[in-house]
Amino acid sequence: MADRSLVFPADEFRHRVARLQDEMAGQGLDALLLTAAPDIFYVTGFLTRFWESPARPWFLIVPATGDPVAVIPSIGAALMARTWIEAIRTWDAPHPGDDGVSLLIDTLCSLLPEQARVGVPMGLETQLRMPLADYDRVAAGIAPRRFVDGTGAVQRVREVKSAAEVEAIRASCAIAGRAFARVQEIAAPGRPLETVFRDFQAMLLQEGADWVSYLAGGAGPDGYADVISPASSDPLQDGDVLMLDTGTVRNGYFCDFDRNYAVGPASEAVRRTHAALWEATEDALASLRPGMLARDAHRLLSVALVRRGAEPGGGRLGHGLGITLTEWPSFTPLDDTPLREGMVLTLEPGALVAPGRMLVHEENIVLRAHGPELLSPRAPLEMPEL
Amino acid sequence: MADRSLVFPADEFRHRVARLQDEMAGQGLDALLLTAAPDIFYVTGFLTRFWESPARPWFLIVPATGDPVAVIPSIGAALMARTWIEAIRTWDAPHPGDDGVSLLIDTLCSLLPEQARVGVPMGLETQLRMPLADYDRVAAGIAPRRFVDGTGAVQRVREVKSAAEVEAIRASCAIAGRAFARVQEIAAPGRPLETVFRDFQAMLLQEGADWVSYLAGGAGPDGYADVISPASSDPLQDGDVLMLDTGTVRNGYFCDFDRNYAVGPASEAVRRTHAALWEATEDALASLRPGMLARDAHRLLSVALVRRGAEPGGGRLGHGLGITLTEWPSFTPLDDTPLREGMVLTLEPGALVAPGRMLVHEENIVLRAHGPELLSPRAPLEMPEL
Repeated sequence: MADRSLVFPADEFRHRVARLQDEMAGQGLDALLLTAAPDIFYVTGFLTRFWESPARPWFLIVPATGDPVAVIPSIGAALMARTWIEAIRTWDAPHPGDDGVSLLIDTLCSLLPEQARVGVPMGLETQLRMPLADYDRVAAGIAPRRFVDGTGAVQRVREVKSAAEVEAIRASCAIAGRAFARVQEIAAPGRPLETVFRDFQAMLLQEGADWVSYLAGGAGPDGYADVISPASSDPLQDGDVLMLDTGTVRNGYFCDFDRNYAVGPASEAVRRTHAALWEATEDALASLRPGMLARDAHRLLSVALVRRGAEPGGGRLGHGLGITLTEWPSFTPLDDTPLREGMVLTLEPGALVAPGRMLVHEENIVLRAHGPELLSPRAPLEMPEL
Repeated sequence: MADRSLVFPADEFRHRVARLQDEMAGQGLDALLLTAAPDIFYVTGFLTRFWESPARPWFLIVPATGDPVAVIPSIGAALMARTWIEAIRTWDAPHPGDDGVSLLIDTLCSLLPEQARVGVPMGLETQLRMPLADYDRVAAGIAPRRFVDGTGAVQRVREVKSAAEVEAIRASCAIAGRAFARVQEIAAPGRPLETVFRDFQAMLLQEGADWVSYLAGGAGPDGYADVISPASSDPLQDGDVLMLDTGTVRNGYFCDFDRNYAVGPASEAVRRTHAALWEATEDALASLRPGMLARDAHRLLSVALVRRGAEPGGGRLGHGLGITLTEWPSFTPLDDTPLREGMVLTLEPGALVAPGRMLVHEENIVLRAHGPELLSPRAPLEMPEL
């Protein structure tokens, strides 16, 4: 892959745009205005870590027919020109008085009829990546054209992955799998958790990660208090469970799964809970099917845990995955998103071992017509002992 | 630093809130509503990489007097409880029908009088980190209280760093400096750029980075075409200039500087341009003072480059730095932000070597009353040869 600016062939992106335009037609949208890094990467292949800088907004317009138009800071022109996108308009950002606002208004007005409805992702799990005051200026400047919620179109398309996307996520999963298999090289009683975190990230890079966007975890005698903390300097101790959860990126695609390790022999409660999580995952691997809803997946995992005597942890028990660490849908009791063939999902059952101490187990799958296909190398039933 | 959830003592955060409340008073704000990771970290010390997941919004209310109130997903309750924040209200997110909206409305209405003006960062270099449709629901739900632009208060306070913040940034700069000094261990003719990027990130972790949020760079015979690209698989070649630019994070604080290396002997044009960049930086180190404007820094660097026969690259020539890779202000011809004592800034002159090929040189400073103090170890005048 000599040119990282275009992870896939142009046809992959043309196909995505065609799918978006189908959904847009169904929802009466004359265009989509995209501002967020994942959405812009999805359509263009424009891959950069420069999004880390909040200084400049970036815009991509997907019209109802025809190719997208990029309206971007000039600092990105050279990289965008290496993607399949041909229509690229730039301004010198950051511009305190007019940071792309007038150029975006001009572009939208020149492309779209006055009655146009322009979809902007405004719903669950979306964020507008531009200053809110500038958004209001653009909304006023394009009138009578108007912004409406475009979440549905983007979600419907991005949720179902192409074959190329599935392979990209599989590659990220394989990188993390190889690093998880080597954790005994870096973790042992007495090692500070923060050292383990550093070494594990370095190992992910050695195994082929382009970068490590996410690592969280914890360690404690009956599991961990939460799953989002950075590492403390506390040393690992005999009797701890160590959990590492990584969102590792290769070619712009994430994996998102964790592994648990016993520091010395695990307690009976910990082993029983880990087995319940592992077996609940087996149940989901056997019975999840397209046509179920996201909340059915939540119920399936909850029931499987309870049947094995485990107390399900709060929160969601899985979610979508792909060009962000987490994507729609969420396996909660309230999410009625239909599960469809081609979705890439995490199965993430958690259970309490003791009050305030939990274990979480996670695998990544792609949902096929006949059920889940694993993308992460399956965790062992018994936690590896360090 | 045993507890990474609170990088600094609570007094540091109380002092920040007092400064914010001073600015709020000056601008007639009855509260700030913060949604973005850097703003919430700034006030609370809540440090997690979980922001990588776009699934859930997080809210922090800073009232005109008294302590902040967190309104957050329950998955973050345990970690937030380890900060100095005592008022923590949670909901089970993601909730498709009401993802914190009613809880936020209730909290704002219970805390604030009906005529309250609630500042939300809406201006340059800010983003609202919650679904736009939910923001509109909250705005309607809190009426007659209303949202107004709170950018100024946040910018004025965050721009000037405390002593503890300066030391945190200095520590990140030192980590990157040690890694930059070892680049000859990982980069040589024939090595693919993507391998150099992986190895350099691993080296940053070895040197003490908690994580590497940003790495960009390039390599080519007369410099590089842009400064935001991920690595290609192209091998380094004799005559290339290799540039690596990293935003490395330790305890939630960034450095942001680059270094250039000559792969084999550098051409005369490259050496001349690098010397001009280095000397222009010397000029800025000697003459930048509080009371100048951001645009004065731009002019100072531009003039210094032209005087040495270099052609300044487009875009900004420096910016703020701290809890994000880039912060206000920007050294552009249009930014009239006053430079103040205690600001941490990058000096980032760039110049063209040939059409479409440039060199960029960057250092990090804190602005003292008497002028800049370097936080990054000063680059050598002559590029190191690999």
